[in-house]
Amino acid sequence: MEKDLVENKQIVLKSYINGSPVETDLELKHGNRIKLEAPKGSNGVLVKNLYLSCDPYMRGRMQDFHASYIRPFRPASVIEGFGVSKVVDSDNPNFKIGEFVTGITNWEEYSLVLKTDQLRKIQQDDGIPLSYHVGLLGMPGFTAYAGFYEVCAPKKGDYVYISAASGAVGQLVGQLAKLHGCYVVGSAGTSHKVQLLKNKLGFDEAFNYKEELDLEAALARYFPQGIDIYFDNVGGSMLDAALANMRVHGRVAVCGMVSQNNRTDKQSFRNMFGVISKRITIKGFLQSDFIEKYPRFLEDVTGYYKQGKIVYVENMNDGLESAPAALVGLFSGKNVGKQVIRVASE
Amino acid sequence: MEKDLVENKQIVLKSYINGSPVETDLELKHGNRIKLEAPKGSNGVLVKNLYLSCDPYMRGRMQDFHASYIRPFRPASVIEGFGVSKVVDSDNPNFKIGEFVTGITNWEEYSLVLKTDQLRKIQQDDGIPLSYHVGLLGMPGFTAYAGFYEVCAPKKGDYVYISAASGAVGQLVGQLAKLHGCYVVGSAGTSHKVQLLKNKLGFDEAFNYKEELDLEAALARYFPQGIDIYFDNVGGSMLDAALANMRVHGRVAVCGMVSQNNRTDKQSFRNMFGVISKRITIKGFLQSDFIEKYPRFLEDVTGYYKQGKIVYVENMNDGLESAPAALVGLFSGKNVGKQVIRVASE
Repeated sequence: MEKDLVENKQIVLKSYINGSPVETDLELKHGNRIKLEAPKGSNGVLVKNLYLSCDPYMRGRMQDFHASYIRPFRPASVIEGFGVSKVVDSDNPNFKIGEFVTGITNWEEYSLVLKTDQLRKIQQDDGIPLSYHVGLLGMPGFTAYAGFYEVCAPKKGDYVYISAASGAVGQLVGQLAKLHGCYVVGSAGTSHKVQLLKNKLGFDEAFNYKEELDLEAALARYFPQGIDIYFDNVGGSMLDAALANMRVHGRVAVCGMVSQNNRTDKQSFRNMFGVISKRITIKGFLQSDFIEKYPRFLEDVTGYYKQGKIVYVENMNDGLESAPAALVGLFSGKNVGKQVIRVASE
Repeated sequence: MEKDLVENKQIVLKSYINGSPVETDLELKHGNRIKLEAPKGSNGVLVKNLYLSCDPYMRGRMQDFHASYIRPFRPASVIEGFGVSKVVDSDNPNFKIGEFVTGITNWEEYSLVLKTDQLRKIQQDDGIPLSYHVGLLGMPGFTAYAGFYEVCAPKKGDYVYISAASGAVGQLVGQLAKLHGCYVVGSAGTSHKVQLLKNKLGFDEAFNYKEELDLEAALARYFPQGIDIYFDNVGGSMLDAALANMRVHGRVAVCGMVSQNNRTDKQSFRNMFGVISKRITIKGFLQSDFIEKYPRFLEDVTGYYKQGKIVYVENMNDGLESAPAALVGLFSGKNVGKQVIRVASE
């Protein structure tokens, strides 16, 4: 039976950006009308995209820089990212119509996925919201897990500081650190987020960095004993302030530099000498280097969630139309928790 | 028999400094006339100082900063550092008159050492110049050894870059890296030092950083494949340039920041984002954290030297009078190799 053509709205990158993205860097296009089928012989699947993930790393893909760990988007083309999707048609024996999958998908209503080895099937019997597969149980969650356990070398009783602490990654790092027996302080950019950290996410303390004139002094106040572990999501002056407050043999896991608009923006440091005198380790990481830990992560974090030991805060925007604002909002801290776009209902 | 009083010239710090030291920050004083004896019941030794070591870390002790890993000197008092000395009198059964020792001693002709547990006896039957016990076999040599093997995680074939490469530490790092099967490039600040690196110290390549307008471009030229290990003795813009040229999973061992005049001088970085995208580890260290490796170091490096596998370049100045200029000269790169002051002949 011949299938009907349907409209397929898409989010397109207009052109490469310099600096922080604005909504008009992205555009909703109506795209070509497509058939909802996976062509015979393609071995692919045709999916309906349900949830799309907004992640800070995507800014890097909007820039004309080809020498990094991930290639840039193509101007005038649909962008891609992590998503949760439902199989609508399949030419691949491993995927059946009606199944849910997660992996890299285009920012559009329907996608033909040919690299099916990059999709992971979601078992929907686990009482976990589908959208969590791009957050708590997706790349951000795994980033938190791998960064904390594999990079930070945590010990019970360690003093742990997390910037952008209510974000997709930070909120899980803090909860894992608490489960590990650490003292945990987070910073965020609104009083609402600070309350969330203290009241819902179980941080010992939290503060609004925008209300602090002197970040070094603020950290000294929250960490009179100094910091053992700094989980850095922002870079720049916060990293510098943390260096001033690290303890001997402190560890800094560098996960993100959301304070930096461009890869080569100048950042000024006054406290680099502490790296020697306090024997600090600063270690950048990508979750993909620890991919062999992924099954263990899924098991552990699913378990914690089901046992009520951790929670997860999402910022859900509705409709593909909301996607440009949602993605751009990450860089001014508009999101409260993990930013997701609901493209369609399940 | 009552011993005579003898003159005891000393080097005194006049007052705390800001910025780079100048010769007049230090002063030769004639000191009190002393008896060349270790008082009964003191358990100490009276030593004649033969060689004094000039080390960059000493600048930190000339500043009024009390929160670091080592306390500052006291103004108007004799300064101290590593030295090689001969026992002239002893109230300690472990040390005999005529023996040679190395450890912390005052910058003066004769010193009464009461903390004898910090002295190490030198076996003089090993064909190694006495002065090497503050260089190749002393703190700088051990810094090179511990930094290279314990911090850099070297592998055969690694591309290794060393700044201040002809200095007390760098020259040994480079030779150890060559013995380890690495490709080794060093930088220094004169063409004479560059020749030394290439012709005497066995580096694969070397360059004069002062002749390079663009350090990033210079490193890209010497490391078209990128840098696996950067052994950093200088910090600042050279560290930033190295970050731009590191390979994925590169390691930076931060040993010194001789480019920095003050602990909190601003340093500007453009390439910090590479720490994430290339998963770079930046690790500060002090040799003292690895002290359990010291016996092994002595055995290994003594062996390499006796087998002719390594050499060591010293810059020897004669007389305590030369001490202020010798120490200060470190910070403008006047020394060629390890800077030592010969206070007296053996």
